[in-house]
Amino acid sequence: MSRFICNGLARISEYVPGEQPRDKKYIKLNTNESPFAPSPAVITAAAKAAAGLNLYSDPEQSELTSVCAKYLGVRPEEVLMTNGSDEILNYAFAAYGDKDAPFVFPSLTYGFYKVFADLYNVPFREIPLKKDLSIDIKDYFDTGANIAIANPNAPTGLLLSVKDIEQIVCKNPSRVVIIDEAYIDFGGKSCVRLINKYDNLLVTRTFSKSFSLAGGRLGMGVASEELIKDLKKVKYSTNPYNVNSMTAAAGIAALKDADYYLSNCRVIAENRDMSGAALKKLGFKVTDSSANFLFVSHPLIGGKDYYLKLKERGILVRHFDKAGASEYVRITVGTAEQMQKLIKVTEEILALNGGEKAENI
Amino acid sequence: MSRFICNGLARISEYVPGEQPRDKKYIKLNTNESPFAPSPAVITAAAKAAAGLNLYSDPEQSELTSVCAKYLGVRPEEVLMTNGSDEILNYAFAAYGDKDAPFVFPSLTYGFYKVFADLYNVPFREIPLKKDLSIDIKDYFDTGANIAIANPNAPTGLLLSVKDIEQIVCKNPSRVVIIDEAYIDFGGKSCVRLINKYDNLLVTRTFSKSFSLAGGRLGMGVASEELIKDLKKVKYSTNPYNVNSMTAAAGIAALKDADYYLSNCRVIAENRDMSGAALKKLGFKVTDSSANFLFVSHPLIGGKDYYLKLKERGILVRHFDKAGASEYVRITVGTAEQMQKLIKVTEEILALNGGEKAENI
Repeated sequence: MSRFICNGLARISEYVPGEQPRDKKYIKLNTNESPFAPSPAVITAAAKAAAGLNLYSDPEQSELTSVCAKYLGVRPEEVLMTNGSDEILNYAFAAYGDKDAPFVFPSLTYGFYKVFADLYNVPFREIPLKKDLSIDIKDYFDTGANIAIANPNAPTGLLLSVKDIEQIVCKNPSRVVIIDEAYIDFGGKSCVRLINKYDNLLVTRTFSKSFSLAGGRLGMGVASEELIKDLKKVKYSTNPYNVNSMTAAAGIAALKDADYYLSNCRVIAENRDMSGAALKKLGFKVTDSSANFLFVSHPLIGGKDYYLKLKERGILVRHFDKAGASEYVRITVGTAEQMQKLIKVTEEILALNGGEKAENI
Repeated sequence: MSRFICNGLARISEYVPGEQPRDKKYIKLNTNESPFAPSPAVITAAAKAAAGLNLYSDPEQSELTSVCAKYLGVRPEEVLMTNGSDEILNYAFAAYGDKDAPFVFPSLTYGFYKVFADLYNVPFREIPLKKDLSIDIKDYFDTGANIAIANPNAPTGLLLSVKDIEQIVCKNPSRVVIIDEAYIDFGGKSCVRLINKYDNLLVTRTFSKSFSLAGGRLGMGVASEELIKDLKKVKYSTNPYNVNSMTAAAGIAALKDADYYLSNCRVIAENRDMSGAALKKLGFKVTDSSANFLFVSHPLIGGKDYYLKLKERGILVRHFDKAGASEYVRITVGTAEQMQKLIKVTEEILALNGGEKAENI
């Protein structure tokens, strides 16, 4: 860091994205991307938009916002499009976090919540998960704090019902509850309709996972018109043209092809359940994931060791060196072929590992 | 605004982008876009990248950063790519502004500097321009503050020399000097090489103007490796995948086609000088612009009136309702055809206006 940096920024630890090694070609199961390419209509729409890039994108993103609102069954005034869902989360922490307006979130969840809280100097409390890694909703009643919950949670994949979410939202009427639905399309039921009933609910979504647009950077917030106005204030105070024209066109085309993407989600859910069952047979503990990833641990091999051995063999997964997670790895669900390869390589690793273990006894 | 918003945010006035009316087709000379489409190679590169959007973009943007660094004659460690240049400016105010680290900038300049200062609660002082609207560099010596200067300045178009910039930079060694070179390719000389000599200089650039990529959202910061590290800290604490894959590919292709774009810049500079001279003949005061816009006023018609009359006749320009600027309009330089139309319509407006004036005498 330079001698000019402000003290506030110097003390924080930034987010660390999943690694992108370039030393060889990996089966990439580490950043929860979709293994399926965007639909042809999306590629065509993006290319068409490229021809007009000399003009600014629409700062209001009127067409994209309308199409999204219609898809979700809400009004356009209740939707704000952003440069990935990290951006809408950033806006929310900026708008609602304060030294007098703390945040709470689960002790094991998306690592960025803590980064945002640190960035804005917002006090926060990490609420431990239950022993089975699930969230105890009662821990989130009457917190006096803003709340951020990923549903399904990451990296556990565990889902709360809409009824559970509703209880949390109505038990914190004086604070904002953010429900991060990045992974909702892989088996969960969205709570987006609750925004009509609760003015303190912000639902965030991304096109990165179920809509195969991780590289396009498109996310959104869905909330009461008043909350959306707050978040627009952050957008217009930082980056009014935050969403580029090609991504906007891609997003519109993707929603028009929703059947294709939701069918991909079903395939991914099948692959998840198939490979989860196979890993259980190999002795793994596997959480009941509703997302596009598995969170697994094995009594005979540590999380970091398993991650490293997979990497050596050309498969990238994600290991979190953090209390409560270090025994686990998070495996993004890919194609059936990729998952079969993962199982096969895992069997080899366990066989070697078992051999070593046997010798050590 | 909602009842949840933090006090800090409630008090600020956000940036207002140039209008984008959709009631009819306008000749759009209001947001300093290029009238020239991206080159075919850019469109092809963006379309090719669209096919791989299911994977995240490279958070480090290694290839794009290297290509940019080479183009500018600096090292990749001295460059940070952002989602438009508003984002790099945002990062800089976040990193270097503080209640104890104020900012100064010209009283008439890019409106976003004030918004960023407000957003981060940074004290700032707006330094008046000279009577001829130019910057007196002595006003920027030993300020004790961080400095933001657009060069050429907007909306005046007036340029400081590299020598002038160097004096400002070396007279403020304990603060950061941001030189915003959004419009440098239309006639100015970049001060980018000074980063090797001064660790407190941050040069910002955009692909929106000279590289016809306003809708793609691509900007960058160029500075000492230490400053770039600070700014990366902000990026990784807010939006690690800030630049999407299509725009990255478009940026790489655009720099490879730099000759095409720089030739467009020369055409725009010719159109600017041609239309500036024509407006002078019509009695306008025209600043000596080195940018892709003209800043003009007329003794017989107010800025707002001229703007409205042009709009009625299908030509959009920008009027700033602000002390020191309200008599002027800012006219983006378009194609020769567009500028001829502007002159013709202006003659009609002045004839009508002169007629009315004559009757009123």
